[in-house]
Amino acid sequence: MNGLDDIRWDAQGLVPVIAQEIGSNDVLMFAFMNREALARTVQIGQAVYWSRSRQRLWHKGESSGHFQRVHEIRMDCDNDVLLLKVTQLGHDPGIACHTGRHSCFFKRLEGGAWQRIEPVLVDPQTIYR
Amino acid sequence: MNGLDDIRWDAQGLVPVIAQEIGSNDVLMFAFMNREALARTVQIGQAVYWSRSRQRLWHKGESSGHFQRVHEIRMDCDNDVLLLKVTQLGHDPGIACHTGRHSCFFKRLEGGAWQRIEPVLVDPQTIYR
Repeated sequence: MNGLDDIRWDAQGLVPVIAQEIGSNDVLMFAFMNREALARTVQIGQAVYWSRSRQRLWHKGESSGHFQRVHEIRMDCDNDVLLLKVTQLGHDPGIACHTGRHSCFFKRLEGGAWQRIEPVLVDPQTIYR
Repeated sequence: MNGLDDIRWDAQGLVPVIAQEIGSNDVLMFAFMNREALARTVQIGQAVYWSRSRQRLWHKGESSGHFQRVHEIRMDCDNDVLLLKVTQLGHDPGIACHTGRHSCFFKRLEGGAWQRIEPVLVDPQTIYR
């Protein structure tokens, strides 16, 4: 796929990826992909990232059931950031965060300190199997 | 401000930042901040990034007039990514991209190639002075 060659992969062969919920436009999470992860994402229509901590492909939802259906893949002006438009599967409302929350961006800076402002929808201990 | 110490700054002292338009929830751009940029952002209520290419603070809009009013600063579960909720000032609809487009994420992968799917709202040659 020619499009992969247009991406400015970083020194580790990765590109940052923002996952945004289609419809609400909520930003759900931020992760990375390598070429193989992106190729696989395109192939199966679900988000596959590169886990930097585990150094392996990470099919989002593989252990939680919270897969992401990918509707669109966008790229920025500098060709070095991707944006996925996704449906967050497995729960309604969607749970993208490993803490059991809708979005990973659940802390807000208030008076110089971070406050958790989004509810835990499902106890994460019951999510991962 | 204590909150700055909670952030997991990378080896270069930076943190990735997603700017999202309040209201539409459109993702406008992606950039980086260092401690000073974030402190300044909080202080003035407008987005100040760290320009990696120019290696200096970058008050978004300083040369274009397209400043970003910051309504909220969010942080993710891992404390290593920030999300700003902003109003994109200087033009209606807001222009966040240096190409004169609303959002930097104007290319979409279609059949393996990137297509530009968002219009140029203002010729960038007339934006920068």
